[in-house]
Amino acid sequence: MTRLLVECVPNYSEGRRPHVIQEIVAPFRDRRGVHLLDQRADPDHNRLVVTLVGEPAPLQEALLESARAAVARIDLRGHRGAHPRIGAVDVIPFVPIGRVTMEECVTLARGFAERYAAELQVPVYLYEAAARRADRRSLERVRRGQFEALVTEGLASESRAPDAGPAVLHPSAGATAIGARPFLVAYNVNLKSRDIEAARAIARTIRASSGGMPDVKAVGIALEEQGMVQVSINLTSYRVTSVHRAFAAVREEAARRGIEVWGSEIYGMVPAEALIDAARDALMLRDFDLGQVLDLRLLDLAAEGGFVADVPDGSVATEGGGFVER
Amino acid sequence: MTRLLVECVPNYSEGRRPHVIQEIVAPFRDRRGVHLLDQRADPDHNRLVVTLVGEPAPLQEALLESARAAVARIDLRGHRGAHPRIGAVDVIPFVPIGRVTMEECVTLARGFAERYAAELQVPVYLYEAAARRADRRSLERVRRGQFEALVTEGLASESRAPDAGPAVLHPSAGATAIGARPFLVAYNVNLKSRDIEAARAIARTIRASSGGMPDVKAVGIALEEQGMVQVSINLTSYRVTSVHRAFAAVREEAARRGIEVWGSEIYGMVPAEALIDAARDALMLRDFDLGQVLDLRLLDLAAEGGFVADVPDGSVATEGGGFVER
Repeated sequence: MTRLLVECVPNYSEGRRPHVIQEIVAPFRDRRGVHLLDQRADPDHNRLVVTLVGEPAPLQEALLESARAAVARIDLRGHRGAHPRIGAVDVIPFVPIGRVTMEECVTLARGFAERYAAELQVPVYLYEAAARRADRRSLERVRRGQFEALVTEGLASESRAPDAGPAVLHPSAGATAIGARPFLVAYNVNLKSRDIEAARAIARTIRASSGGMPDVKAVGIALEEQGMVQVSINLTSYRVTSVHRAFAAVREEAARRGIEVWGSEIYGMVPAEALIDAARDALMLRDFDLGQVLDLRLLDLAAEGGFVADVPDGSVATEGGGFVER
Repeated sequence: MTRLLVECVPNYSEGRRPHVIQEIVAPFRDRRGVHLLDQRADPDHNRLVVTLVGEPAPLQEALLESARAAVARIDLRGHRGAHPRIGAVDVIPFVPIGRVTMEECVTLARGFAERYAAELQVPVYLYEAAARRADRRSLERVRRGQFEALVTEGLASESRAPDAGPAVLHPSAGATAIGARPFLVAYNVNLKSRDIEAARAIARTIRASSGGMPDVKAVGIALEEQGMVQVSINLTSYRVTSVHRAFAAVREEAARRGIEVWGSEIYGMVPAEALIDAARDALMLRDFDLGQVLDLRLLDLAAEGGFVADVPDGSVATEGGGFVER
């Protein structure tokens, strides 16, 4: 039997209180059909990013339960953090993986948005591929002015009217952006320098919004504790601008300023393909096909309902070549 | 339910006659529990290399059926080819993948060898990790002098006595080496040069047998049609000497001789980890963990008997967020 999986990366406006983070994440543990792949809380951003894969039905139940905890525990009226946000549950993007299509994730996001808004009484904006209005394709635009602007302006204007749920802001939990988008690779390049202006200039040079590479977002930030600066990058479509192209561009721009690269980091999850593409480039691989990658073939076999690459617990090979219970 | 998988890479001394290749490969098609990942026939080598993954029981049945075809169709007495060989079925290595251990593959290889030798009446030498004698750890040593030496010397001497099966050579099909070994990455680097001596010198410099890098075999060969030379490499343990280290060494040695690299190729299958390691090196990735690779996590989930990343045929997302039959 094959079952459908989607990825979902909910972001919550809580990166500091461990017991609250625990409560938010608890619904994703030990639930059949839902797997918690990664969770990262950042106190400076005051934000929690959770990476899940799951079957749509149990995933939605878990998301609702988690959102109830977040809405109950997080009050945006006293919230401070470096990351822009409009709600206690700030964004919930659904991401196609495997053979799931973007259209299926759009349908999932729109359906979930209705239920979420009704059950939590939190207004919802549909964004990116799930947007019902062109002006909501961009999450930055949906989040313009953040929670505080929504409080000041209210939701009565056409530009602020939610796509689902109450026409007024939730007093403490604000609003939530629910959407569908391609897999996003969060990728940072650290420079052997304390020159924040250089990092910002490099970010401006490479990012799409200022005429750089397509599907690249980038900012320059200081890493105070490490005494370095960082070009912090989101690759919103790694097949358009790859990890290794972004790395090469930062290295080149840094070199032009006499700055060396210290190293880079993948923040959170990354598809194997993105790294294999980087290897293909570095090794000057010719005539290479992803079908040559053993693990990807095994995953295909598993997806087709075939067998999986595991030895059952408690079994061992026998001299006869079979496998028996240990 | 989880099921065990091993990899198996049988090599047959037939790289020219398509109908014989078809007969040899047929038992691996449409058999539950066995998957044919790759097949490569090389006319110059006069050799067929098949990559399989499968559950031990059906895999062994398929291997026996395939070997029967090879033994019936291939006559070593008239066989010519560039690749060393002792039998119609030349080698059958079992390779641990996933959580299968080398010890389990050794047990599997030894058990299979007994059955293979008895059913096909072909003498078997156990090699590499499955060897019962230290002098058979090296396949080169087992194959010394090839089929022709076995004919001349006979199998009566201690050094030629088989580990399983008849004490005489099969008249047309010779003998077979059955073993267990780590995953082998076949990797070639092509040079923009026709200087075969340079390719040979580079191969000598990097290979383990002449004091180069550990777990590296290498030869220099001419690619007549492409007007280039190639350093053809086997990485017998890619965690010891990685693909990117081998590439860098060849590139460096070539540069010392004023020769540029044209490109490289993976021949057959490669574990994702080997390429991800190359990406890690190229991107100067720090604090990276294989657990961040989405596809590897999904494969783990599948192996644990969880769900798999697929949308069932005929289903589609509904507005309610669920998935129904199309």
